[in-house]
Amino acid sequence: MEDRGFLLGDGLFETLRLYRGRPFRLSDHLCRLQEGAARVRLGWPDGVEARVAGALAASGMEGDGALRITLTRGVGHGLLPPDPPGTPTLHVVARPWHPDPAWEERGLSAHLAGRVDEHALTAGLKGIGYLERITALLTARERGAEEAILRNSAGAVVGGSASNLFLVAGGRLRTPALEEGILPGITRSVVLELARHMGLDAEEGSLRPEELARADEVFLTSSLRELVPVVAAEGTRVGPGSPGPVWRRLLDAFRERVRAELGA
Amino acid sequence: MEDRGFLLGDGLFETLRLYRGRPFRLSDHLCRLQEGAARVRLGWPDGVEARVAGALAASGMEGDGALRITLTRGVGHGLLPPDPPGTPTLHVVARPWHPDPAWEERGLSAHLAGRVDEHALTAGLKGIGYLERITALLTARERGAEEAILRNSAGAVVGGSASNLFLVAGGRLRTPALEEGILPGITRSVVLELARHMGLDAEEGSLRPEELARADEVFLTSSLRELVPVVAAEGTRVGPGSPGPVWRRLLDAFRERVRAELGA
Repeated sequence: MEDRGFLLGDGLFETLRLYRGRPFRLSDHLCRLQEGAARVRLGWPDGVEARVAGALAASGMEGDGALRITLTRGVGHGLLPPDPPGTPTLHVVARPWHPDPAWEERGLSAHLAGRVDEHALTAGLKGIGYLERITALLTARERGAEEAILRNSAGAVVGGSASNLFLVAGGRLRTPALEEGILPGITRSVVLELARHMGLDAEEGSLRPEELARADEVFLTSSLRELVPVVAAEGTRVGPGSPGPVWRRLLDAFRERVRAELGA
Repeated sequence: MEDRGFLLGDGLFETLRLYRGRPFRLSDHLCRLQEGAARVRLGWPDGVEARVAGALAASGMEGDGALRITLTRGVGHGLLPPDPPGTPTLHVVARPWHPDPAWEERGLSAHLAGRVDEHALTAGLKGIGYLERITALLTARERGAEEAILRNSAGAVVGGSASNLFLVAGGRLRTPALEEGILPGITRSVVLELARHMGLDAEEGSLRPEELARADEVFLTSSLRELVPVVAAEGTRVGPGSPGPVWRRLLDAFRERVRAELGA
């Protein structure tokens, strides 16, 4: 309770999917965490990889699950961190987790709610402070949708409450660029790579809210949920109102990639 | 470690100054906390006032100090809160705390760093997620200043890293309006009230960064630090570069008010 993570959200985190107890792209997640820590001047403790591996082994997880890694600036009150710096807290927890089959079968409805500030010093970081995103999700739910789509200060749509956003229009894949204030998603980068391998034109840019309802397909990506179709936005059907063929091909390719990398 | 405060910054907090162990304007702080909790759909536990009073009594604090009250959505993983809601966590800690005498004697230098989003769903709330503010403060320190002054998405200056902002220009007091995305500070409201009692013209509006260096005086207000003069902004002297007379009168009046209310 005296940890700066609890007191001030003074830390960063990663959430990974566990497939049969094994994390996908752990080194990419740790690399992102380390880069984020440097940006907020948070020390990088020794032996993070070994400690994560140890916690995962100790959890005994062998099924599907979620791995949460939290790094905070350690114990201490007051905005100004102690000088010399304290010992960062590294907290790792693995828990069983399964996707809802309905996401894949019928997709989600989404509502525009909540903001991301692309000009913040902490833009693009996975800081602990998720209250805006939680409130966005609750607001979307109250309005009858299942997911929130957040906008940045320029009014562009940037992603779901904890996911990156893609749309398919005119046979091209589009997703917000990193400069839009988005988290550089691990699944996002795999999807972009797979799309280009498939010969699909994939463009990173700025997406206006009105493009959602006009798109042929919309989907969200995240490490936990993989690729989830969005079939309605602001009460308007996206495409035919059911999960689309580009999403399906990319999800199949993504899962094949997971199997290939994890040797499962 | 499984609390949503630690995992997701899913909570709000209050920090109060203790004068000889007694909190100033506790009921105002609890009222703000309760209003914030309603905005983020966080339940209000029974007996908050009694629990705060109990923790304060148990701390044995009789000197000057800081009281920290944290309210979170309780235990649980995942952005979507459990349904039915879990039990909110209420965490109260009192600790000795003294202001740095240098703040009052010579004032602070400030540097523009960090952002506040006045259009966020959580704008104006004291959410746990202070990483942007901490990073702003560290950035200001690296640039040789002692405090950060944050801007909102319209580029207006809104406050210090954990404080409200006032300036004195042409004999008038000016401070950002609540719509600018600022926290409705308890000390801020007392200062506005005292200023009006003194016959000082006090205006709430939008403040441009260039107004800081042109002002006769600049000061920050917060519950812990009371009123702290800012004597340099972006390397440029504010007024004569020393704490000003309006700040002094208001600080004296503020302390008189504290003594009157606490009967000390």
